[in-house]
Amino acid sequence: MIDKLVEKIQKTNAPIVVGLDPMMDYIPEHIQKNAFEEYGETLEGAAEAIWQFNKEIVDHTCDLIPAVKPQIAMYEQFGIPGLQAFQKTVDYCRKKDLIVIGDVKRGDIGSTSAAYAAGHIGTVTVGSKAYHPFGEDFITVNPYLGTDGVKPFADVCKREKKGLFILVKTSNPSSGEFQDRIIDGRPLYEWVGEKVAQWGADCMGKSYSYIGAVVGATYPEMGKILRKIMPKSFILVPGYGAQGGKGADLVHFFNKDGLGAIVNSSRGIIAAYKQEQYAKFGAGHFGEASRAAVEAMKADIGQALCAAE
Amino acid sequence: MIDKLVEKIQKTNAPIVVGLDPMMDYIPEHIQKNAFEEYGETLEGAAEAIWQFNKEIVDHTCDLIPAVKPQIAMYEQFGIPGLQAFQKTVDYCRKKDLIVIGDVKRGDIGSTSAAYAAGHIGTVTVGSKAYHPFGEDFITVNPYLGTDGVKPFADVCKREKKGLFILVKTSNPSSGEFQDRIIDGRPLYEWVGEKVAQWGADCMGKSYSYIGAVVGATYPEMGKILRKIMPKSFILVPGYGAQGGKGADLVHFFNKDGLGAIVNSSRGIIAAYKQEQYAKFGAGHFGEASRAAVEAMKADIGQALCAAE
Repeated sequence: MIDKLVEKIQKTNAPIVVGLDPMMDYIPEHIQKNAFEEYGETLEGAAEAIWQFNKEIVDHTCDLIPAVKPQIAMYEQFGIPGLQAFQKTVDYCRKKDLIVIGDVKRGDIGSTSAAYAAGHIGTVTVGSKAYHPFGEDFITVNPYLGTDGVKPFADVCKREKKGLFILVKTSNPSSGEFQDRIIDGRPLYEWVGEKVAQWGADCMGKSYSYIGAVVGATYPEMGKILRKIMPKSFILVPGYGAQGGKGADLVHFFNKDGLGAIVNSSRGIIAAYKQEQYAKFGAGHFGEASRAAVEAMKADIGQALCAAE
Repeated sequence: MIDKLVEKIQKTNAPIVVGLDPMMDYIPEHIQKNAFEEYGETLEGAAEAIWQFNKEIVDHTCDLIPAVKPQIAMYEQFGIPGLQAFQKTVDYCRKKDLIVIGDVKRGDIGSTSAAYAAGHIGTVTVGSKAYHPFGEDFITVNPYLGTDGVKPFADVCKREKKGLFILVKTSNPSSGEFQDRIIDGRPLYEWVGEKVAQWGADCMGKSYSYIGAVVGATYPEMGKILRKIMPKSFILVPGYGAQGGKGADLVHFFNKDGLGAIVNSSRGIIAAYKQEQYAKFGAGHFGEASRAAVEAMKADIGQALCAAE
């Protein structure tokens, strides 16, 4: 799957992932109204609004981008109906040949991580039958439990040719509270990065490993160091746009081959119609506003990478 | 909710939580067969088997224990139908007046943690209506992202009188890989424990905080230190039984008031009928075997606490 990701990034010339994190505030009035008319102001109604919103954004951007990253929390908050909208979104994006990164941040002791891995990127057996329940291509994983919490995910990746992005240095303001603490002269995130490189060495695609890392755009200097610690790991970079990361900050996350990173934007793309510069589209054409925002992001990153060469 | 937990522990005289982590291997043949006859060898069939299995265990143990802890991964691995069985289990246990600790180990950046908190222990609004989607009483939370990843959970706890158990020192063999690393002379888990105490100070029940910690039974010496660092935090102790923790190891997790800890056993209780000492019950009476295992666990812990007085 990492080889397919590389190929799709090269084909679209866009190291970009659209974060499908549909907060209700982002969903235009008319979409909510239609959904509530059909299902009432229920969890099912919210799920239908999310699904219709996602579908329109995917339809307007899928030819420009290699991948999407649905944040499962935004679906899980609406219980079972919300998770059904997550499932529908994953299925639809895969049908559109987009790579799906499930932002699930799971992680537990060995046997429990194995269950999460089976459900999201692997196979479960029921009697004599096998199923791929959620069926994402990549998922994000929390490393706090150490190797035996991560290995079951890596094992599934090897078997199913799927991929992981392990949290190394997250984009949020207080990520430093534990992640930056100094251990034997180096911050914790570097030690986690070393482990990601080790775990990944055993799961190589053509030029990159199936096991990547999450490093926030909001910490470009740390990205520079982590890029060197994990040369064969793709870095999923959240925090661009709404969280404050800029195109020029992103250069250090890439390798000299122009690859090695994929930058996520969620609100900046999916709620573009609410920004002044895309207001002309109006809520009725929010999908087109998202498309314009993807094109602008692509230009911003392309320019930054060019300037750095 | 922490006050209710204390009250129920005192009433049952059992600082015990039954881990409802139904691996398919644990579920007796006849339960699987009935479920597959009704739903086929499908995800729905697996979910039905899980639900029938849980129901029988709950029916046979609910008067002896204060709480259950369903591990969501064991349900999530079967996709949407699996999560429906999780929801049914939560609802049923709450109807039986058991406290439900959702072992979900979620944790993300602020706005995303807020969505998880709303979905599991809080309220979501859809138009003019409010819902409590999953409706657990407590959930487990991963602290790797720091304060702004935990605060949204704590805020919901305060508002809804629910509770958290934050991962501090996990029970698995490689938990030390990051958690034991020394920072300014003390291991990371102690720094996390300090934070748990701080976060918890702001959310106090009568004698304990709404914000507790997870510390593995497999590390009793560390439990002793963490008990002192977090005197007002309840400790959820996994790793008893199948993972190797013994009654005598648990003494240090309790305070002098005989409270402050709740010990989880999963496999040891729910798959008790597979152990030699409970084999006489047979797979046909697995619920009774679980009841006997709860009684034995209660005696083991009671004895250890008595001996320590």
